[in-house]
Amino acid sequence: METLKSYVCGRWHEADAGFRPLVNPATGEEIARASSRGIDFGEVLEHARSQGGPALRSLTFAERAGLLKAASKVLREHRDELLELSRVNGGTTRPDGAFDVDGATGTLAYYGAIGRGLGDRPLLVEGDGVQLAKTEGFWGRHGLAPRRGVAVHVNAFNFPAWGLAEKLACSILAGVPAVTKPATATAMVAVRIVELLVAAEAFPEGALQLVCGGTGDLLDRLGAQDVFAFTGSADTAMALRDRQNLRETNTRVNVEADSLNAAVLAPAPSEAAVDLFLKDVVREMTQKTGQKCTAVRRVLVPAADAERIEEALVERLARVVPGDPAADGVTMGPVATAQQLEDCEQGVAELLACTRLVHGEGRRIDGTGAPAGKGFFFPPTLLRADDARGAAAVHQREVFGPVATLLPYDGTAEEAADLVALGGGTLVTSVYGDDMDWLGRFTEGCAPFTGRIYIGSEASAEVAPGSGIALPQTLHGGPGRAGGGEELGGLVGVKAYLQRVALQGARGVVEELLVPNESE
Amino acid sequence: METLKSYVCGRWHEADAGFRPLVNPATGEEIARASSRGIDFGEVLEHARSQGGPALRSLTFAERAGLLKAASKVLREHRDELLELSRVNGGTTRPDGAFDVDGATGTLAYYGAIGRGLGDRPLLVEGDGVQLAKTEGFWGRHGLAPRRGVAVHVNAFNFPAWGLAEKLACSILAGVPAVTKPATATAMVAVRIVELLVAAEAFPEGALQLVCGGTGDLLDRLGAQDVFAFTGSADTAMALRDRQNLRETNTRVNVEADSLNAAVLAPAPSEAAVDLFLKDVVREMTQKTGQKCTAVRRVLVPAADAERIEEALVERLARVVPGDPAADGVTMGPVATAQQLEDCEQGVAELLACTRLVHGEGRRIDGTGAPAGKGFFFPPTLLRADDARGAAAVHQREVFGPVATLLPYDGTAEEAADLVALGGGTLVTSVYGDDMDWLGRFTEGCAPFTGRIYIGSEASAEVAPGSGIALPQTLHGGPGRAGGGEELGGLVGVKAYLQRVALQGARGVVEELLVPNESE
Repeated sequence: METLKSYVCGRWHEADAGFRPLVNPATGEEIARASSRGIDFGEVLEHARSQGGPALRSLTFAERAGLLKAASKVLREHRDELLELSRVNGGTTRPDGAFDVDGATGTLAYYGAIGRGLGDRPLLVEGDGVQLAKTEGFWGRHGLAPRRGVAVHVNAFNFPAWGLAEKLACSILAGVPAVTKPATATAMVAVRIVELLVAAEAFPEGALQLVCGGTGDLLDRLGAQDVFAFTGSADTAMALRDRQNLRETNTRVNVEADSLNAAVLAPAPSEAAVDLFLKDVVREMTQKTGQKCTAVRRVLVPAADAERIEEALVERLARVVPGDPAADGVTMGPVATAQQLEDCEQGVAELLACTRLVHGEGRRIDGTGAPAGKGFFFPPTLLRADDARGAAAVHQREVFGPVATLLPYDGTAEEAADLVALGGGTLVTSVYGDDMDWLGRFTEGCAPFTGRIYIGSEASAEVAPGSGIALPQTLHGGPGRAGGGEELGGLVGVKAYLQRVALQGARGVVEELLVPNESE
Repeated sequence: METLKSYVCGRWHEADAGFRPLVNPATGEEIARASSRGIDFGEVLEHARSQGGPALRSLTFAERAGLLKAASKVLREHRDELLELSRVNGGTTRPDGAFDVDGATGTLAYYGAIGRGLGDRPLLVEGDGVQLAKTEGFWGRHGLAPRRGVAVHVNAFNFPAWGLAEKLACSILAGVPAVTKPATATAMVAVRIVELLVAAEAFPEGALQLVCGGTGDLLDRLGAQDVFAFTGSADTAMALRDRQNLRETNTRVNVEADSLNAAVLAPAPSEAAVDLFLKDVVREMTQKTGQKCTAVRRVLVPAADAERIEEALVERLARVVPGDPAADGVTMGPVATAQQLEDCEQGVAELLACTRLVHGEGRRIDGTGAPAGKGFFFPPTLLRADDARGAAAVHQREVFGPVATLLPYDGTAEEAADLVALGGGTLVTSVYGDDMDWLGRFTEGCAPFTGRIYIGSEASAEVAPGSGIALPQTLHGGPGRAGGGEELGGLVGVKAYLQRVALQGARGVVEELLVPNESE
């Protein structure tokens, strides 16, 4: 059995105790173990601050972008190997693994591309200059400076590659060294990624460290110049946010938590909109076995369309083949861990208090190609609640698996937006329709409660990739329950690692300090 | 004695118990009393949410900007009355009162002006659109939506007018109703401002409420759509940030705390730079009797220049005349309260552990024109520490009065930046010199540790207003000890009250939902 190592202080660290097992979720077989025992987290931070930070800051934004581009290439060259690890440790089908791994390389490449134009000054210029007095003798402009600390990245189990890369891309481009910590249960892909990047000398020493296992007292050592970025459950986010040290030192915290995303069908939809809606809902329920923070949990349909939509969804869900991704014909893998399986069963039981089962068993099944009784298989499960407002649990309890609830509503944009809002803040809301007036009122109503609105229409049907993809160009994050953080969104995500500073002085002085040579 | 009222739920509320006295700090005389006893804070929030919010959101950004412009005019028309209240309740000289009151009207007018161009859509468009797929069938762009909650504004005692206005301007423009709470000790100016705005029907009912006295359980009732903006001491900021409800609900918190701002003289300065430096330091030490969150607390001078700078500062500080602002010839008023006076005495005593007294008594004095033994007068006080790095208290203990410490340093940009950083995060850093290479290295070194860098040079000397003014065009806020918040800075401050949302869909759909008609 493989023992996973951490990469800290310029060397690979192997623990000698405190191990947790990693399991193939399709078979239940233990395949590796991990522990961070013996790591001195004070040294880890000191290594990042004294070596990684200065090395990154000695490069320009454009030069750091070049590192990201090269890192993307390294990972792309090992795609097959990473997909295989994803299957073995994550239970992913090949398309689901690719969703994670290609998302990682794509995001690194994207930030490599946009970073090339960010210039050669220590501060990134933001916005236009503005005259602050009667003459240009007093002028103001904003710049963004790399924070002088460390970025601690704690990622969720469902995206070991993409989660690592999307946070790393932003902090490296900003000039802030990172300590990345994958969820232990599915850490093998992340460990391999760091091995590849270290071997390729993709980043200056100290710019990327890997903690495999628990974080010990790492968070209690962070300060005002550091950034703590977390992706995971809303409950864990709350516990971490509560950490006294983070509050006392004013550490910058960026949280992206799971949320109860809704897909909404507008009234009187065209057949094209209905088709797109059905295709998207089924994918967003079952892709990665529903283990996406952007997955659809609530399916709002006009009451008049509820029966036919339910029928169509059931028909499509029935075609999904859960099983061991190594077996032929399997289209959906297991959930990632025994604990996730238990949570799915528990969650559906809780939702059944105010919903009824429309499709799926709501409990573990045997998977195609897997030994009977082995593996963490949970079938696509559709619930329904006819009293959409009254079904409180549907708006509060997330089941992190292939589970969603059908909620008929009255067809008005206002009611649809209010139902979305009952989720208390979500990462993404998808809506399907072509009536611009209705879409306008819906958008206005739900915008404060969601980080992204994905509009499916006839005009988008051909090329839109579905609501579940967090593209680097657009915001990933949402208010309230979704954590209140902001990742990706082009430079928005990079700014989490930068300190905004206003420069004031004579125009010539301010502009010379901020504006890159090439655009002068 | 006047009893100050609160304006809540559309009526003026007068408490019948729980009063705290307000005092004329130049005479010690009680002039008014305030209490929020009897206010139902649940009703206050409900009033804002059910009336103020919808009324504001029914207006466009441009229409709300119009309200701000009109509100500015109302206050300008009552300038003399407000300046007199400022003197009586705040102990301010006329220029110091004007710094506060004119700052308020100027900031309202500024947001009125920039808001006019923000268009007629419910969401504010941000940045450019970007093609997300092979065709324009999938397009992305960011919008900013008014949060659906309430903005609670807790202001500091030193800027009853400006503090109220700068927060209010941003939340009103964003479309979010406000509950404003002045510091009780100096609330009279804020109460009068709200009286004037209510009488003029400047804003829709519910858009502005005033709590005069304690906030009771107000903060414990806030939720994910609300914003809590606080200005005050770093200690109070920490206590409030710790409030369990704010963390549990993910209320957005924006803190602007006092900080240990530094003024830095570059080496081999021109005489013009020295003159500007001396003028600014003396003003930023004594304006508003040193009670500005942006005041200079640490004065860094090259060791080679330390003696002559000390002499020149002492000479200028000796010309300051502390006393009752009502008396002829007085150029600096008292501190605002007995408690502030005590804190100044205590603070100087603590600093004297690692500094020596260069000018000033370091304890209460009688003021010109004030009865002996009455009034909270504290003289301009200059300390000096020759071991700048070793004088830990100088970088940690803020004395919120006319007190600063002279710190000789070796003249290098790196050492100056490191000394600035020892403050743990400041609102503003001022630097005086003309050597661009030195300024560049200094700026790079201290930018992550401060919210604003004010560069005084020959080119700025004629028109620059000093580092203490928080202009609405540029960021007000700083990292770490300074609170980590962001106010003003043009739209930066408005965004605190908006939720960023990415819109994705066909280009035509996304653009029609976001882009105002006039720019189509």
